[in-house]
Amino acid sequence: MQDKQSEKDIRGVRIDRVGVKGLRHPIIVRDLAHKKQNTVATIAMAVDLPHHFKGTHMSRFIEVLNRHGRIVHVENIPDILLEMRKRLEAEYAHIHIEFPYFIEKKAPVTKSKGVLDYSASFTAHAYDSKNIDFVLGVTSSVTTLCPCSKAISMRGAHNQRGSVNIQTRSSKTIWIEEIIKVAEASASCELYSLLKRGDEKFVTEHAYDNPVFVEDLVRNVAVRLRKDKRMKWYRVEAENFESIHNHNAFAIVESAPWPARKSR
Amino acid sequence: MQDKQSEKDIRGVRIDRVGVKGLRHPIIVRDLAHKKQNTVATIAMAVDLPHHFKGTHMSRFIEVLNRHGRIVHVENIPDILLEMRKRLEAEYAHIHIEFPYFIEKKAPVTKSKGVLDYSASFTAHAYDSKNIDFVLGVTSSVTTLCPCSKAISMRGAHNQRGSVNIQTRSSKTIWIEEIIKVAEASASCELYSLLKRGDEKFVTEHAYDNPVFVEDLVRNVAVRLRKDKRMKWYRVEAENFESIHNHNAFAIVESAPWPARKSR
Amino acid sequence: MQDKQSEKDIRGVRIDRVGVKGLRHPIIVRDLAHKKQNTVATIAMAVDLPHHFKGTHMSRFIEVLNRHGRIVHVENIPDILLEMRKRLEAEYAHIHIEFPYFIEKKAPVTKSKGVLDYSASFTAHAYDSKNIDFVLGVTSSVTTLCPCSKAISMRGAHNQRGSVNIQTRSSKTIWIEEIIKVAEASASCELYSLLKRGDEKFVTEHAYDNPVFVEDLVRNVAVRLRKDKRMKWYRVEAENFESIHNHNAFAIVESAPWPARKSR
Amino acid sequence: MQDKQSEKDIRGVRIDRVGVKGLRHPIIVRDLAHKKQNTVATIAMAVDLPHHFKGTHMSRFIEVLNRHGRIVHVENIPDILLEMRKRLEAEYAHIHIEFPYFIEKKAPVTKSKGVLDYSASFTAHAYDSKNIDFVLGVTSSVTTLCPCSKAISMRGAHNQRGSVNIQTRSSKTIWIEEIIKVAEASASCELYSLLKRGDEKFVTEHAYDNPVFVEDLVRNVAVRLRKDKRMKWYRVEAENFESIHNHNAFAIVESAPWPARKSR
Repeated sequence: MQDKQSEKDIRGVRIDRVGVKGLRHPIIVRDLAHKKQNTVATIAMAVDLPHHFKGTHMSRFIEVLNRHGRIVHVENIPDILLEMRKRLEAEYAHIHIEFPYFIEKKAPVTKSKGVLDYSASFTAHAYDSKNIDFVLGVTSSVTTLCPCSKAISMRGAHNQRGSVNIQTRSSKTIWIEEIIKVAEASASCELYSLLKRGDEKFVTEHAYDNPVFVEDLVRNVAVRLRKDKRMKWYRVEAENFESIHNHNAFAIVESAPWPARKSR
Repeated sequence: MQDKQSEKDIRGVRIDRVGVKGLRHPIIVRDLAHKKQNTVATIAMAVDLPHHFKGTHMSRFIEVLNRHGRIVHVENIPDILLEMRKRLEAEYAHIHIEFPYFIEKKAPVTKSKGVLDYSASFTAHAYDSKNIDFVLGVTSSVTTLCPCSKAISMRGAHNQRGSVNIQTRSSKTIWIEEIIKVAEASASCELYSLLKRGDEKFVTEHAYDNPVFVEDLVRNVAVRLRKDKRMKWYRVEAENFESIHNHNAFAIVESAPWPARKSR
Repeated sequence: MQDKQSEKDIRGVRIDRVGVKGLRHPIIVRDLAHKKQNTVATIAMAVDLPHHFKGTHMSRFIEVLNRHGRIVHVENIPDILLEMRKRLEAEYAHIHIEFPYFIEKKAPVTKSKGVLDYSASFTAHAYDSKNIDFVLGVTSSVTTLCPCSKAISMRGAHNQRGSVNIQTRSSKTIWIEEIIKVAEASASCELYSLLKRGDEKFVTEHAYDNPVFVEDLVRNVAVRLRKDKRMKWYRVEAENFESIHNHNAFAIVESAPWPARKSR
Repeated sequence: MQDKQSEKDIRGVRIDRVGVKGLRHPIIVRDLAHKKQNTVATIAMAVDLPHHFKGTHMSRFIEVLNRHGRIVHVENIPDILLEMRKRLEAEYAHIHIEFPYFIEKKAPVTKSKGVLDYSASFTAHAYDSKNIDFVLGVTSSVTTLCPCSKAISMRGAHNQRGSVNIQTRSSKTIWIEEIIKVAEASASCELYSLLKRGDEKFVTEHAYDNPVFVEDLVRNVAVRLRKDKRMKWYRVEAENFESIHNHNAFAIVESAPWPARKSR
C-alpha cells in the first residue's frame, strides 16, 4: 500500500509542529491526599517535520499514548516524549495535557466537607533525548474584592469571581496542591463548594477585610513564588469577571522571559 | 443531474425539523435610539419533511435568506418564513437569529458615555401561511448582591455578575430596550462599560441597598412583565456567577406552559 | 443568625426551578466492559419553590450530593432526587449530569486498540416520592458522506464529521454502549482514535459505500429505536459539520411529544 | 475621594500587562469590495505598570476607546495606542481586536451569490511613541481531502472542514481579502455558503483532484507568503476536523522567530 507521508517534499518548508489535538482521554494523576486521582484529559501531541518529508504518521501519536494501557499515567510523560521522538523520527516532541482536578475542602467555620474543582495542565517539550522542558499550569477560581470600591463607598464593596492561572518551571517536583494554596492565599478569599450560614458570614467578612485589585493578585502570587527556591520560572495571569462591568479586568506578570530554544 | 433529495423514502419517518445552523451573517436590527443597528447574527433555519421524501434542499435556505440583499433586515422575518414554506414545499418553517446588541448608556453620576453589549434573539415559527409564532429573547448582564450574606455579615456582602434571559410572546411589538430595562430594574444594580470613581461609589452603594437572590431577580422580572398588557407569555431565567463558589445559582419562572402546536 | 431564605414572600410568583448549575464533580458510571468507569461530570440540580417562600437553601443541594462520599455513583440518582425533595421541602426535584464516556475499540482491519470518547447525560425529574422520570442522553461522533455529492460527481464525495444526540426514555435499563451502537450503525462509518493504513482504506471505502444525508441518519436511528420494545420515547438530533460549507446541516426526529407534567 | 490606584506599592513587582478583555463593541473595518464593513469585535487593551504604582485606571481604557465615537474605526488603532500610553502614563500599550468578517462570493459554476464568514484580528503593540508593531490575523475555513486516503482506497477519500489561521507582519498594508485568497488557494477547495447541484459536483471533484495533508496546507501557504515582498514575518496554523477521528490534526509553520522586545 502506498506510503504518501514518506514521499519526498521539494517545497523546502520545515514544519515546526505537526500532530493531533482535541483528543479526550481518561488519565490518572498523582494526588497529595489520595495518592492518585482519576480524571479526564484533553491532549495535544506534536513533533517537528524536516523539510524533505511530505507528512508525519499521525496514527503513531495514538499508538505511543496507548502503549501503557487504556489510561494514561502522567508519570509516563518523559517516556511518552522520548517514544514520540523515536517512533516519529523527530528531533523535537511536544505534549500538552489539560484536565479538571479536584480537592476536598472543609468549610472555614462549620468544617463541612465539599469537593472543589480546578484546572491543571502539563506542557512538556523534548529537544533531544536528554533535555525535557516541563511546565506545570494550574488555574484556580477565587474571590476578589475591589480596594477602590471599598475605600470610596459608605457601605459594601463590589466583588466577583476571579481566575488565576499560574505556569511554573521548577528544579524539583511541585504539587498541584501547592500552587493552588499560593493562588488562594493571594486573593481576597478562596472558594468553597459547600458553605453553611456561619461559613458564608466568615467568607464575606474575610473578603471585605482583604481587598485586592487584579494587580495585587498577580503581585501577591509573584512574591510567594519568588521566595520558593525550587522555582526557575513563572508566569501568572489573573482575570476578574467584574460584577459592575460586562467585561473583565486582567493582569500578567512573568518572572523573566524563558530562554526557549526555537522549536526547530 | 440526479436529484437524490427528491427520491421516495419508505422508512415511514417524518422529520420534525431539518435545515441549517451555525450560519454567521451580517444583519440590520431596528434600534430605538438610532433607528437601525448593524450587527452580526448566528442563524438557524429549518422546515419539516414529510415521511415520503428522502431529503430537503439545503441550498434553498440560503437562497431565501439572500433574496433581500447582502444584509438581512429582521423586519423581513415573516416573509422569510413564508418563502421557506413555499420554496421548500413545507408546512412548517422555523428561524432562529441570535446577535449581540449595543446600547449607549450614561454613567449614573458623571454621565460619562459608554456602550454596553447585550445578546438578543428572534425565534419564529410558521405553521401555515397565516400564523406566525414570534418569540423575542434578550439576555442582559447585571449585578446581584446576596441578601443573606448582607443580613448575617458585620460588613460587606458577596455580589457578582449575573445574567438574565427573558423570552416573550406579545400581542404588540416590544422593543429590545424595554426588555433590558425590566431586567436591569429587577437586579441589585445595572452594569456600565465606563464608570469613573463617583459612579463606582454609586453602583457599589446602590447594589448594597438593593440585595436580590436569584429567586428575587426572576420574580421581580415576572411581576413587571405580568403588568404589561401586551404580554401573552414569558419565561425568565437568571443565573448568578457566584463569587463565593465555583458553580452558579439559577432560577426559572414561566408564565404558563405555552400551548405549542406540535411542530408537525 | 437571620434566615433570609425562609422569610415570607408576597409577590405571588411560584418558581418553577431554582438550584445550582455548572458544578464539576468526579463521578463513577456503570460500564459494560469494565463494570465501572471513572469520569468527570458537570451537574445541575434544582427544585421548585412555592410562592410564599423568599428563597431556597442552595447549600443543601451540595450536602445531598456529597452525602454518599467524595465521588458520585450514578446508581444513587433516585435516592439523590428523593433526598432533594425532603431536605429542600420541595415537590419537584431535578438533576442533570453530563460527562465524557470512553469505550475501547478495535480498528476494523488491523484490530489495533484505541479509546474513543462520547458524551453522555442523565436527566431525571421526581414529581412526587414515587414517580421518577429518567432520560438517558448519548452524543456520538460519526462520519457522514453525502449521497447527492456521490451521485452527481465523477469521483469522490464530500464527507465530514457529524454528531448524533439520542435522548431516550425506556421501560428497562439501556446501556450507553447500546445507544452508541445504534448511532454508529446509522451513519456512513463509525470513528476510531487509532487507524493504520489498512484500516483507513476500509473506513474510506465503507463510508463511500454507505452515503447518508443528515435526514437518513436520524431516520436510521429512529427505525432502530422503534423496533426496541424497551423504548417509551426518543428524540434524535444529528448535525453535520459540512466540509463544503462553513455552516452545519441538522435534522431532528422525536417519537411523539412526551406528555410532560408541568414542572411543579 | 481616595485614589487607591495611585498609592505606592512596595512589593517590587513590575506588571507586564494590565487591562481589560472580553469587551464587545461595534466596529467598522475597511473592506475591499464595499469600502467599509460594519461588524462586532471582542477587544482587549492593556498597558504595563511600573513596580511602584498600586494599580492602573481601568476606566481610561474605555474612555480612549470611546473618544472617537460610538463605533470604533480600525484606522484609529495607532492613535488609540498612543492615547493609551499617554492617558495611562505607560511605556507599553497593547490592543487586540477580533471580529467576524464577511465576503460575498459567487458559486464556481452557477455563479449564485452568497456571503461567507471569516474571523480576523488586529494585534498591535506600542513600545514607545514611534514604534508600533502590527499583526494581522485571519482565520479561514476550507475543505481538505486526505492524499493518503485517496491513494490507498479504491473509491472515495475522506475529507473534512479545516481551519487555517494566518498571522502576518508586513512592510505595507495587506488586505484581509488577500490573506483569505492565500488560505483558500492552499487547500483542497474553498467553502461557499450557497452551492447548487452543478456547483456541488464541481467542489467535490475539485477537492478530489487536489488532496492536501494538513502539512501540505501550511506549506502551500508558506510558499505563497514568502514570495510576497511586503511580508516581514508570518505564522501559519492549520487544523483539520478529521472526518474519521474524533480528534483533530494540526500543523504550524513560522517564518522565523520574531525578535520581540520583552513587553517591558
